[in-house]
Amino acid sequence: MTDRALVDELLTLVEPGKVLTDAASLEAYGKDWTKHFAPAPLAIVFPKSTEQVQAIVRWANQRHVALVPSGGRTGLSAAAVAANGEVVVAFDYMNQVLEFNEFDRTVVCQPGVITEQLQTFAEDKGLYYPVDFASAGSSQIGGNIGTNAGGIKVIRYGMTRNWVAGLKVVTGKGDLLELNKDLIKNATGYDLRQLFIGAEGTLGFVVEATMRLDRAPNNLTAMVLGTPDFDSIMPVLHAFRDKLDLTAFEFLSDKALAKVLGRGDVPAPFDTPCPFYALLEFEASTEEVANQALATFEHCVEQGWVLDGVMSQSQQQLQNLWKLREYISETISHWTPYKNDISVTVSKVPAFLKDIDAIVAERYPDFEVVWYGHIGDGNLHLNILKPDDMSKDEFFARCATVNKQVFETVQKYNGSISAEHGVGMTKRDYLTYSRSPVEIEYMKAVKAVFDPNGIMNPGKIFAAP
Amino acid sequence: MTDRALVDELLTLVEPGKVLTDAASLEAYGKDWTKHFAPAPLAIVFPKSTEQVQAIVRWANQRHVALVPSGGRTGLSAAAVAANGEVVVAFDYMNQVLEFNEFDRTVVCQPGVITEQLQTFAEDKGLYYPVDFASAGSSQIGGNIGTNAGGIKVIRYGMTRNWVAGLKVVTGKGDLLELNKDLIKNATGYDLRQLFIGAEGTLGFVVEATMRLDRAPNNLTAMVLGTPDFDSIMPVLHAFRDKLDLTAFEFLSDKALAKVLGRGDVPAPFDTPCPFYALLEFEASTEEVANQALATFEHCVEQGWVLDGVMSQSQQQLQNLWKLREYISETISHWTPYKNDISVTVSKVPAFLKDIDAIVAERYPDFEVVWYGHIGDGNLHLNILKPDDMSKDEFFARCATVNKQVFETVQKYNGSISAEHGVGMTKRDYLTYSRSPVEIEYMKAVKAVFDPNGIMNPGKIFAAP
Repeated sequence: MTDRALVDELLTLVEPGKVLTDAASLEAYGKDWTKHFAPAPLAIVFPKSTEQVQAIVRWANQRHVALVPSGGRTGLSAAAVAANGEVVVAFDYMNQVLEFNEFDRTVVCQPGVITEQLQTFAEDKGLYYPVDFASAGSSQIGGNIGTNAGGIKVIRYGMTRNWVAGLKVVTGKGDLLELNKDLIKNATGYDLRQLFIGAEGTLGFVVEATMRLDRAPNNLTAMVLGTPDFDSIMPVLHAFRDKLDLTAFEFLSDKALAKVLGRGDVPAPFDTPCPFYALLEFEASTEEVANQALATFEHCVEQGWVLDGVMSQSQQQLQNLWKLREYISETISHWTPYKNDISVTVSKVPAFLKDIDAIVAERYPDFEVVWYGHIGDGNLHLNILKPDDMSKDEFFARCATVNKQVFETVQKYNGSISAEHGVGMTKRDYLTYSRSPVEIEYMKAVKAVFDPNGIMNPGKIFAAP
Repeated sequence: MTDRALVDELLTLVEPGKVLTDAASLEAYGKDWTKHFAPAPLAIVFPKSTEQVQAIVRWANQRHVALVPSGGRTGLSAAAVAANGEVVVAFDYMNQVLEFNEFDRTVVCQPGVITEQLQTFAEDKGLYYPVDFASAGSSQIGGNIGTNAGGIKVIRYGMTRNWVAGLKVVTGKGDLLELNKDLIKNATGYDLRQLFIGAEGTLGFVVEATMRLDRAPNNLTAMVLGTPDFDSIMPVLHAFRDKLDLTAFEFLSDKALAKVLGRGDVPAPFDTPCPFYALLEFEASTEEVANQALATFEHCVEQGWVLDGVMSQSQQQLQNLWKLREYISETISHWTPYKNDISVTVSKVPAFLKDIDAIVAERYPDFEVVWYGHIGDGNLHLNILKPDDMSKDEFFARCATVNKQVFETVQKYNGSISAEHGVGMTKRDYLTYSRSPVEIEYMKAVKAVFDPNGIMNPGKIFAAP
């Protein structure tokens, strides 16, 4: 069947104007935030209902057309890239909040709801959607579920998985499943909902998600603390965790801070220069809690773990302290960073980081290295910046040669080669560093249950057969 | 092959003395707390290592012998019953805490670790294992994972699922999988760990589990509140939940209370008789919190939602208030109760309960009905007590005729026919009231991936093929 004939059939499945094939759309919808693959989709289709999604999937099975789900396309692993003539299924027109239940604290969302839209919706109701990260302004709930998005509040609130009360999905066979029906307790066999969370669209499409909300946090307060070395960050984490219910514990290196301060629009936290910084947050719900935080700070200074620090006294100061951390990713994107998103258990972080640091120092002596991440949950972002005078191709090729060594170290520490960015195409060939070959065979067999013809986002997580 | 020859082979797979075939052992290990099925296993085998578990599974595949996992055998759905010549695999000799990590707050457990053993272990370390329920003194971690055990603290801490950092499992094919490696963040494909949680041993055996601990709760304080009717319980829940971080919110009917007080060893909470009672708990970490609780109590009295109430002022009083709730199950077991363990979303509880109550009043006019449950998470335990002069068989037969109507109501409210007890054999034939036929087909196909020969706990969740 010709491409033209396929598109003609596709046109009959959705509303007029909801299939795009112009070059600009193919370019825009065929890629995510990774820039490694040239987009080359056959067409972009915009379903407006579950029925239309089912029709598209059934048609794709008939015609053996590969489908790629597309949300906010903010992914960092090329899981939403269409580089091989696939049909991109974009959820921009399934973007409504359908229902709110104040007693259950749940919101029924279509997959195209923007993360920030849900956060704001919750706030308007006096509640809180706690999954938050740099791309919340454009990422979509469907995509968050597909990658089990994490971010900056995981230490307290967990990943997206924790907030999914129920899912409606269309499987790769075109069946509509209603998973878990929003129940808190439901012991009636395998929780298939969990399979779809983090599946990167390889099993089916999420067409509706019931998300839980939490009570609004009470007087969130942040501290930024400078430490004399990386090793001091861990005792600081433990000291504060023992005394307070932390909502975040992040870290950044002096280079990361310098890049953000270089923008000129964020004030420095304090004058003392430090090689590493921790940013922590808690609910200062009473004066007692705030005093406890200050006492712990003083204890850390006495122990020599902290050189200087500051605590937010207002919403404005809270936001300014957070900008030091949240602006890093955007700021360094100017240098086309090569990103590693790796994790180990928290207790292994110091030894792991030392090993990785040695590799980086040896293999990237001429490159600028920016460290930051969610240290409270063992997730480190290692960013290698491209020298201005090196071509992108040469830079990525050189970085790739170091990957093996980095991932061997991840494997040695029983860690993850992708903490929160997913596998997509960029980590696919390294999957065995985190999952055994036997386990990968089981994963493939599970995929075959939901997507026997392999039409759902082929080539993502696993190589296309 | 004869039974004798099979047992002779089995004997070669484990240590001497670790296969039992005497009548008393077959009787004891062949059943759980349900009394509906006559135990009739071929043998009981006690592996002492992962390698022995693998050897047993491989042998069972070769010989087409069915295996039934056995933990504390406190289950209430006959998921651990061996009534058809199966080999029971009991984990009594794999009952060690292998490792503790204070920084990660994790404990590596063998499957036979008793729930209370883990709770005490955590306490000794100044930490907390928050999954708690009436049978914690004899249930095992492996069994908790198999049923995704819930209990009395779910409103704050969630189900067992939330506390499983990593699993080692032997699949029905005999493969050893290390699932998630205890990581907080790990976005490397399908989270197969989640499938094994709540699978009731139908996919494989858990041979090691890394469980998370939480910080110890700070001055837990309970209130028991009497309400004029069931409908008043929900506004009380919402009033308290809006002001406090509740760790529990349970309810019981006057009949449930009367049964417990009838024991003579637990003091009444107060004198005012009330048709329903709520038991709630929170951390009174500061005086401010305790005052907030009292103010909320007064608000509820003013609104007419609460007739009387009491707040614990000591550990002893806290324990006594909890006994009013925790002793119910054991106390009513004297009357051979027919148990229903059903759930809906919290907001639907009042309407749902009214419907169920009408059915019960109409169909069980001559039976005593005891209501209690975890109202904060929508989970209701409906217990029908057997009249002393009725035979067990007649009683269960009469109850079974009402099931259809109860489960139709559950289905109408999009609820679960088994909130936390699992499916096993007792709910198997009713599964379609909570899961669609299409979804059940997917579940069966997932089972076939992990257990292609159907040797793992056949006849549980689904009918044996």
